[in-house]
Amino acid sequence: MTHPASPLALPFPAMPPIAGVTLRVARAGYKDWGRCDLTYAELAEGTAVAGVFTRNVCCSSEVELGRANVRQGRARALVVNAGNSNAFTGYRGREAVEQIMAQVADHLGCPMEQVFVSSTGVIGVPLPKDKAREGVAAALATQPCDWEDAANTIGTTDTFAKGAVATAIVGGKTVTLAAIIKGSGMIAPDMATMLGYIFTDCAIAPSFLQELLGAANAQTFSCITVDSDTSTSDTVLAFATGKAGNQQLNCEGCPGADAFAAALGDVCRQLAHLVVRDGEGAQKFIVVSVTGAASDASARTIGLAIANSPLVKTAIAGEDANWGRVVMAVGKAGEPADRDRLSVGFGGIWCAREGLPLADYDEAPVAAHLKGREISIEVDLGLGEGRATVWTCDLTHGYISINADYRS
Amino acid sequence: MTHPASPLALPFPAMPPIAGVTLRVARAGYKDWGRCDLTYAELAEGTAVAGVFTRNVCCSSEVELGRANVRQGRARALVVNAGNSNAFTGYRGREAVEQIMAQVADHLGCPMEQVFVSSTGVIGVPLPKDKAREGVAAALATQPCDWEDAANTIGTTDTFAKGAVATAIVGGKTVTLAAIIKGSGMIAPDMATMLGYIFTDCAIAPSFLQELLGAANAQTFSCITVDSDTSTSDTVLAFATGKAGNQQLNCEGCPGADAFAAALGDVCRQLAHLVVRDGEGAQKFIVVSVTGAASDASARTIGLAIANSPLVKTAIAGEDANWGRVVMAVGKAGEPADRDRLSVGFGGIWCAREGLPLADYDEAPVAAHLKGREISIEVDLGLGEGRATVWTCDLTHGYISINADYRS
Repeated sequence: MTHPASPLALPFPAMPPIAGVTLRVARAGYKDWGRCDLTYAELAEGTAVAGVFTRNVCCSSEVELGRANVRQGRARALVVNAGNSNAFTGYRGREAVEQIMAQVADHLGCPMEQVFVSSTGVIGVPLPKDKAREGVAAALATQPCDWEDAANTIGTTDTFAKGAVATAIVGGKTVTLAAIIKGSGMIAPDMATMLGYIFTDCAIAPSFLQELLGAANAQTFSCITVDSDTSTSDTVLAFATGKAGNQQLNCEGCPGADAFAAALGDVCRQLAHLVVRDGEGAQKFIVVSVTGAASDASARTIGLAIANSPLVKTAIAGEDANWGRVVMAVGKAGEPADRDRLSVGFGGIWCAREGLPLADYDEAPVAAHLKGREISIEVDLGLGEGRATVWTCDLTHGYISINADYRS
Repeated sequence: MTHPASPLALPFPAMPPIAGVTLRVARAGYKDWGRCDLTYAELAEGTAVAGVFTRNVCCSSEVELGRANVRQGRARALVVNAGNSNAFTGYRGREAVEQIMAQVADHLGCPMEQVFVSSTGVIGVPLPKDKAREGVAAALATQPCDWEDAANTIGTTDTFAKGAVATAIVGGKTVTLAAIIKGSGMIAPDMATMLGYIFTDCAIAPSFLQELLGAANAQTFSCITVDSDTSTSDTVLAFATGKAGNQQLNCEGCPGADAFAAALGDVCRQLAHLVVRDGEGAQKFIVVSVTGAASDASARTIGLAIANSPLVKTAIAGEDANWGRVVMAVGKAGEPADRDRLSVGFGGIWCAREGLPLADYDEAPVAAHLKGREISIEVDLGLGEGRATVWTCDLTHGYISINADYRS
């Protein structure tokens, strides 16, 4: 963590061990940065796995292999490389990933497809095989570490370590979820990448875990944006060791499924918020709430149009109650909207209602709200019951400095 | 023009009068800026009109009325207000536009729907009717002005006056096109607005003019972006007085139609480029050329994804040959792409071919190209024959300063 911590940073939480999960970190030396950059998680036999991956069609070999291998439902290990995304490296990049999978599978005596690999960092440079081999060997031989070590090691230009924890009662047993994430700091020539890993001792069928992870993702990771740019490496994996002793969850409606789903959603939301809080140059955390839309999907599209609008994001950076820019963003979203039913507000205070600026609008409390670190934007379409919440950060000189003020 | 001129500014061209077009400017005082802010163009009887308008569904009354009235095909006058966009002002805003239309129609003895009105500037404040009435009266009573006066008067935070001219031989007669545009400077709480007006002495049927304008728009104004934010006021109108004495153009294939279409396309392209050259904070003019796509439409979508990517735009600002960010933008566009057939280059020099960084890639000439003012990005998808060209500018501290560094 070489940059000063984001002003929106949160302290790393107290996180308990998860039975069946052992973490180790090592120094592969992918970059010349004198810190650990390879994270290894060993998982108990029988661990269920589920995953969601970037929709960027120019994705890395790690994503291609992960997406294919998650289907068989079981995982024994995770390896995360920091400093090289191995994206756009063709067959050479793929060979490096397969080498890591084979090395760990040999060590554990498991099928290769139960070893998951992620990489984040520079694009277009194949992951160096020799460094990977030595790094994995070092990780396999070292002492276990804690969550914060692992969270720091998966980071690249992140300014703080990010973790989240939640518990649920499932069939009378307490199950615990512990998770770490990296994103979305960047430095030349790296790309924004979000890598998240959720570990739980809950016993759950892989297909049901996949179903729940997909649903949680739709409400959390798919509802954040920093700069509208989708990485080629984005990955969220959930691992369930089954060591909590609960009866295996395998379908909606089975006892404890709702509690587990809620805890999973909670952890995903915490992680998603942490990524936004470390957005490049972020000075303000922004919640965009859209109601009254034609559908939930329409509300999300409108929310993302607002959250991705450079004019809205710079207005918030300037602490400017420029609701006209929000109207503009609603109108350009390509979704049903009626100018004369539209209402826009900040911090719970309406600036315009049903297509007209409020006659008695008092900007003072809105201006006070905009001076804070946590900003809310409310939009009501006045059309239907669709609603969505989207999270983003402001667009500041810091973003330009991080992404433009250098030569590679 | 209160800001220093963009480093990408071009000198205002020598522009001849267009028979049947008389320009006048006046001071309505919409803002306290001590300059003319109302532009009036009187058009000969029988002038044909065509228009393209913003797709933003929260558009202004000016846009709604213009879109409806352009259908009857004839225009006698244009009024452009600068300093107040009159957008999101409900019935009060509409009344102000109708008042202007009625006032000019009375003066000319023409139907109201032949008077076109545009406004640009602050949103959410109804155009003051008294100022509009006096401003129109002053314009009607004043001496004619030249193109540069009109171009300056329609501007708001534009840093230079923008005009374009072209000629064509139509049925043995020389027809001339003269055009002015404003956009896309911004200042609190204004919105990016693009207003463009093309005047020609060509005789052409309104429906055919509309067809040609739509086609030109698709290749020019619809292929530029500064910050992906679509204004609620964007308008381009073409007026054809018919004074050149050519036989009226009324369909594709009639003599001179191709020449006129080419000249119209040329003028639109010039205007579109001028808007990009005055993009907020722009330091570099960027041409994105996409070839080998599945279709032309797909190529344009991919080109706009690249041109709107904050990471690509900041890389160009930083003079960084970060082709990985271009790969990312291609992949997120949601269009057919195959990582292993994709090629990316800058300034006509490939950095990566068919999914792999070039083994003998020499960054020196690319770095030299990126130090210039006019940057090209080339992408070949390797899939089909689809191609498109898109124009944008870089994303700099200047953009943040213009849009965030103030309090409204």
